[in-house]
Amino acid sequence: MTTIAFAGLGAMGMPMAKNILAAGFKLRGIDLNTRALEALREAGAEPAHSASEAASGADVIVLMVVNAQQAEQVLFEQGALDALRPGGTVCLMATCSPGAVEQIATRVEATGRRFADAPVSGGVVGAQAGTLTIMAACGDETYAELLPLFQAMGERIFHVGDKPGQGAVVKTVNQLLCGVHIAVVAEAFSLAAKVGVDLGVLLEIMSGSAAASWMLRDRGPRMLEREPDVTSAVDIFVKDLGIVLEAGREAQAALPLAATAHQLFLSTSGRGEGRADDSQVIRSYHLLNGVE
Amino acid sequence: MTTIAFAGLGAMGMPMAKNILAAGFKLRGIDLNTRALEALREAGAEPAHSASEAASGADVIVLMVVNAQQAEQVLFEQGALDALRPGGTVCLMATCSPGAVEQIATRVEATGRRFADAPVSGGVVGAQAGTLTIMAACGDETYAELLPLFQAMGERIFHVGDKPGQGAVVKTVNQLLCGVHIAVVAEAFSLAAKVGVDLGVLLEIMSGSAAASWMLRDRGPRMLEREPDVTSAVDIFVKDLGIVLEAGREAQAALPLAATAHQLFLSTSGRGEGRADDSQVIRSYHLLNGVE
Repeated sequence: MTTIAFAGLGAMGMPMAKNILAAGFKLRGIDLNTRALEALREAGAEPAHSASEAASGADVIVLMVVNAQQAEQVLFEQGALDALRPGGTVCLMATCSPGAVEQIATRVEATGRRFADAPVSGGVVGAQAGTLTIMAACGDETYAELLPLFQAMGERIFHVGDKPGQGAVVKTVNQLLCGVHIAVVAEAFSLAAKVGVDLGVLLEIMSGSAAASWMLRDRGPRMLEREPDVTSAVDIFVKDLGIVLEAGREAQAALPLAATAHQLFLSTSGRGEGRADDSQVIRSYHLLNGVE
Repeated sequence: MTTIAFAGLGAMGMPMAKNILAAGFKLRGIDLNTRALEALREAGAEPAHSASEAASGADVIVLMVVNAQQAEQVLFEQGALDALRPGGTVCLMATCSPGAVEQIATRVEATGRRFADAPVSGGVVGAQAGTLTIMAACGDETYAELLPLFQAMGERIFHVGDKPGQGAVVKTVNQLLCGVHIAVVAEAFSLAAKVGVDLGVLLEIMSGSAAASWMLRDRGPRMLEREPDVTSAVDIFVKDLGIVLEAGREAQAALPLAATAHQLFLSTSGRGEGRADDSQVIRSYHLLNGVE
């Protein structure tokens, strides 16, 4: 396994691709943005002028595009799948719903090629540092083949199952907790604010108690600001909790807390505040409860 | 301030009273359980045969009873308030709704005595070790007067406001996060179980990610057991999330996530499983979603 085609050179994908290059793999980039392609070439990538040219004879194609639809375009419409060498591997790392992942896997495997469902978490910081968490679902052989590639991009690498979609479920479940944890901090602060309790003291107390969460410590302080810097936008959780609920529908599993949290992010976005920091979901609570 | 009357010598109250004695205060116990009174006397408490006798001329009465109703009985029906020295202080440390606390405070202050709303967290372990978190709402002078007493029982002591009920709100908000955090772990595991993801791997991934919470790390492992040891029962959260929702009604604040979580604990209790470990709220999710 030496030649990699890499589709999706955005904020996450570009540093991931560079880390693959730095680990000694041959790599060709795929992106609509020619500047990104040029920047990657300066970092050592081989030139390619189309998705099919980049994938031509490659051993693996990594997909770090925005969503499942873009993955389908690259693979099926732009010809990357057919160009991949027979027996090659498609490694889907974008965040997609489990059902969408399964559908793509079926089409890939029908051509005799392998498929790995391997979403990541850790954000841009983790992508740059090569410390991503990677949640891979694929057969043992495919996992063993991809492991050196995963190690070039990530630090915490988990083989979570052998069926396509299981990696997506783990990522989805992770986002379920993250999204609900942010919303419930907002709910708690909204009640406290209405009764006139000092939110700074409250944050200090709860950060050191059984009420603590990673999100309380990270988003809590920004929830006390009116216009905090945007670390991650409201619309990211509109999308990710949307995928959570899609996964719930596909599995026919009721997810009442996630559904409620989604409504709160959605209403914040619906007021035109989707690009605000996700801590600002608290504004929906303040509106609901008449807190100024 | 030297003589303390202490009402409620249960699993929390007894070690708290002993720590007060150990700090050099004079103390008289109040409890229906004569064995508990005897045990406290052996630890150095002064004898007393009724609530009014224990409170007679005392500087402070500490209430660590089960709920607001019991606090009212001791103070108003059993005569402890009238027996307390004029200008003395009532220190309510039991978990009660903010509204109930305000009502008790009004009646106490009408007699010219002082009132402190000072609930605790940290459990039996914290009560025994003298490391409780104490969230006190009272005037500055009352706080200064009570501080040595608080220091005998606790380690993290916060003056959260000057109005009775604000301490109860902080405790309530803390429980809101705790209860929802447990329920959302159950929701996440239920989805993952239905799709066939290994929950042990999932727990490991999420405990080290932005999805982490104190409750995920503490209750998560017990959620994977069928009959775990009971560290805290389902019915405790039926009660505590009940107080959360009561506080929400009193403040006219909508708390959709807390309300949903409460329903899940309630349904677990309604199937006769209220004494099971609170991690077993996951059984409600498994029933809802048809997971065996």
